Amino acid sequence: MSASPFLRNQWYVAAVPSEVATAKPLRRTICNEPIVLFRGEDGIVGALTDRCPHRMAPLSSGEVNGDTMQCGYHGIRFNRDGSCAHVPGDLPAPRNFRARSFPVVEKHGFIFLWMGDKAADPALIPDFHENDDPAWASVPGYLHIACNYELMVDNILDLTHVVFVHKTTLAGGGVTETPLQVEVEGDRIVAKRIMHNVDTAPIYRAARGLNGKIDRWQMFEYQPPMYVRIVLGAREAGSDTPIGEPVHVVLNSFTPETDKSIHYFWTTARPWAIDDPKVSQLYREMIDLAFAEDAAIVAQQQVYLDTAPPGAGFVNFPFDRAGQSARRIVRRLLDEEAAEGARTAAE
Amino acid sequence: MSASPFLRNQWYVAAVPSEVATAKPLRRTICNEPIVLFRGEDGIVGALTDRCPHRMAPLSSGEVNGDTMQCGYHGIRFNRDGSCAHVPGDLPAPRNFRARSFPVVEKHGFIFLWMGDKAADPALIPDFHENDDPAWASVPGYLHIACNYELMVDNILDLTHVVFVHKTTLAGGGVTETPLQVEVEGDRIVAKRIMHNVDTAPIYRAARGLNGKIDRWQMFEYQPPMYVRIVLGAREAGSDTPIGEPVHVVLNSFTPETDKSIHYFWTTARPWAIDDPKVSQLYREMIDLAFAEDAAIVAQQQVYLDTAPPGAGFVNFPFDRAGQSARRIVRRLLDEEAAEGARTAAE
Amino acid sequence: MSASPFLRNQWYVAAVPSEVATAKPLRRTICNEPIVLFRGEDGIVGALTDRCPHRMAPLSSGEVNGDTMQCGYHGIRFNRDGSCAHVPGDLPAPRNFRARSFPVVEKHGFIFLWMGDKAADPALIPDFHENDDPAWASVPGYLHIACNYELMVDNILDLTHVVFVHKTTLAGGGVTETPLQVEVEGDRIVAKRIMHNVDTAPIYRAARGLNGKIDRWQMFEYQPPMYVRIVLGAREAGSDTPIGEPVHVVLNSFTPETDKSIHYFWTTARPWAIDDPKVSQLYREMIDLAFAEDAAIVAQQQVYLDTAPPGAGFVNFPFDRAGQSARRIVRRLLDEEAAEGARTAAE
Repeated sequence: MSASPFLRNQWYVAAVPSEVATAKPLRRTICNEPIVLFRGEDGIVGALTDRCPHRMAPLSSGEVNGDTMQCGYHGIRFNRDGSCAHVPGDLPAPRNFRARSFPVVEKHGFIFLWMGDKAADPALIPDFHENDDPAWASVPGYLHIACNYELMVDNILDLTHVVFVHKTTLAGGGVTETPLQVEVEGDRIVAKRIMHNVDTAPIYRAARGLNGKIDRWQMFEYQPPMYVRIVLGAREAGSDTPIGEPVHVVLNSFTPETDKSIHYFWTTARPWAIDDPKVSQLYREMIDLAFAEDAAIVAQQQVYLDTAPPGAGFVNFPFDRAGQSARRIVRRLLDEEAAEGARTAAE
Repeated sequence: MSASPFLRNQWYVAAVPSEVATAKPLRRTICNEPIVLFRGEDGIVGALTDRCPHRMAPLSSGEVNGDTMQCGYHGIRFNRDGSCAHVPGDLPAPRNFRARSFPVVEKHGFIFLWMGDKAADPALIPDFHENDDPAWASVPGYLHIACNYELMVDNILDLTHVVFVHKTTLAGGGVTETPLQVEVEGDRIVAKRIMHNVDTAPIYRAARGLNGKIDRWQMFEYQPPMYVRIVLGAREAGSDTPIGEPVHVVLNSFTPETDKSIHYFWTTARPWAIDDPKVSQLYREMIDLAFAEDAAIVAQQQVYLDTAPPGAGFVNFPFDRAGQSARRIVRRLLDEEAAEGARTAAE
Repeated sequence: MSASPFLRNQWYVAAVPSEVATAKPLRRTICNEPIVLFRGEDGIVGALTDRCPHRMAPLSSGEVNGDTMQCGYHGIRFNRDGSCAHVPGDLPAPRNFRARSFPVVEKHGFIFLWMGDKAADPALIPDFHENDDPAWASVPGYLHIACNYELMVDNILDLTHVVFVHKTTLAGGGVTETPLQVEVEGDRIVAKRIMHNVDTAPIYRAARGLNGKIDRWQMFEYQPPMYVRIVLGAREAGSDTPIGEPVHVVLNSFTPETDKSIHYFWTTARPWAIDDPKVSQLYREMIDLAFAEDAAIVAQQQVYLDTAPPGAGFVNFPFDRAGQSARRIVRRLLDEEAAEGARTAAE
């Protein structure tokens, strides 16, 4: 079972804004492409292939010069559009001497990068607005995980694993017994699991003081290639908080670094106690712990995938349905991109 | 010179009993197979392929549940025979949904694992009884070595190297000058080297107070695929201790982990001063040091094998004869397993 | 762009004399060959393939015995010419049982190793005499760099990079604005850059007290396969120190370890203040810092070369001319060696 290629004409979360400062460019590999992210003196972020077209040195070892990226080796400068701005000694550069440039949008507290050759489509940026909405308190995080991104999409779309993997944080009653309802709407998936009168979960006990039986909901929206927005909530069993009202949302981007590693960017946001640092600290500790537990298992799962005997594959249970649907959507979009590529090449 | 495949219808030492507790399963690769060893609540050890048949997650990240192994990711449980005991949500499992199971025998203070498809044959378990015989004091050890197991079989069957590798522990007079007598008996090899009136060895000086000239003996029994039992002894030169009486035995299992790494399990056992912790400590220190010296050399030898120019091979001297015989036995048994596999496939 | 093979009939700096003591042989890989360097009791250095012809164990794990190298595993001894001097038990060795031997010359404070099959040619040893000339003070250094040696030849033959890479040490005015004059003379390259009335450089300020405008010169001699001798100097702008007089020389050997790594041996030597340890310390600190800056960039450059998309290549500017010329010389000599090899094989 080899990894799929990556969808190209999509946005990927490449960084959070604080990582990209004028004082220091950021080198990061996204979808197997080594990229330098830099913030010009005008505050606008640029993204170029980090491999200098002169001699393949890392642009990122250099510095921002005005609004250009200056290579750290021989001082050649490139504009955000990839064109060459300056060669030391004021030498002329050959025609077509340029770095590949990637469209960048800074939004929702993330830096989104467009990997494809088609015009960047802002409508495809996921709605992660809670991450920088002043009515919400957000707790962001990052984890480098040694797995293909699809393993983490599977993971997050099937929260039955919380019972076995996250015993001290996200576990609780009802999850394995309650089927996940899954609906595919075009390229999107919405799924939910609503549980009534079940044992509380450590996170609801700690954050919300829910100690006894609760009603609990998990609502998912998947958007290609690897975004999952989750609304999570609970109430005292039978009380009148509306089902579906968030206690918190978790916004997830499983950005591929390579075929076998990801930059996992997430944020947890809540619309209550937004000025309480103790609540934020509680979220940080619980989520950091829980996601590190996931990372350990999926990294080993990736090793076992890589070394599986010929013919071995996945067996799917009903709780795997959302992840399977996501893989089907990606597969179809990959086919469409391939067909479009062939059509363009033939023209 | 590429590594041979492994003999399948054989026992391999997989662990020592204390490594496999109900509280914590043990993940270990044996002959390139990732395996989870676990002890049910009834005390009996089971061994399954660690790759969960559901989604290839590591069973070993989970826990023992009754006498079953419960996967650490989605909580699916497997019996010791590999059949599925439970799927969360009480879902039905597809026919043939099972983990591969390996026969296990706990004996002589080791856990033996049968890697083959034929019925496990208890008669092939090596006689390592001194390791848990109350009349003997045993000092066990373990070392992970980056080499093919055959390099360590060569090593142990030719103790001339002790003079050059183990100067402060096992060296001493007579070893290089005295030829090794080697006899092949079917699949077994017995070999011995008996030395008269030679300089003492550090280990006999320290453990037995033999300071002057000694008579000394080394007696080997090799059994496929990689067991070597050694009886070692010494006496004041010309005294009347019978030749062949052990000062200590060393029982060795060079369990393949991969083609290029082994789990070296050994034990040193003595029939004297069995309650004296100082003597045990002396053995532990000397043997740990000596075997670490071996590990450093054979790991580099493996690197040089892997990078040898085409056509390069071993040159053999008379002191290599026992190791050569062991390689021939393994080669013949591999041919027999291959022939049998072809015959079975043709039926 | 894959790495060239290495020129064989050439000298390579393998070590500095203090690394090779009778008490301890030195294992070092040169041009992909694992080699043991050892100093006999007569003080003369030998070099053998480190892979023992008996069983491929590392000779270098052993010890010097008289003027022979004794293998660390089974004690077999080899003379400096590679012939077998002794097998333990006084056993006869088969005809042709020998280790490959490499000619060695200790000169100019370096140990030079001849890698080829043709007779070693002392005339090809580079003139690095300042390194052990009593009229000069030398400050040697060593760095292991993860790159093909040609990347460092490029680096040193184009000092425009000092402005961008070595800002706190070797930078200064005039370098990027002044073209490098390059002349190819047979297998050698001489190049120079002479700058008038430019800003001083940190190293000249610190070492020579030159604070204002200076005249500055960089003079290079390249000799295959990877030697670069540099004469560097400066004077108060317009003063009468002769252009070309060294403030210091830098002698460089980019010895290949593998296709993707080098042993970088260098020395800085000066003909003034030769007894002043503070000046030596200043050189050590500035050069160690500067060369570590190079190492970081070229190692990443090598990664980007290795992962470059098909068809990607270097773009060359005028300041790359000396490096390009060096690559052309190596390419021609490689072709000559290949042709000679074919001719010899046909005879």
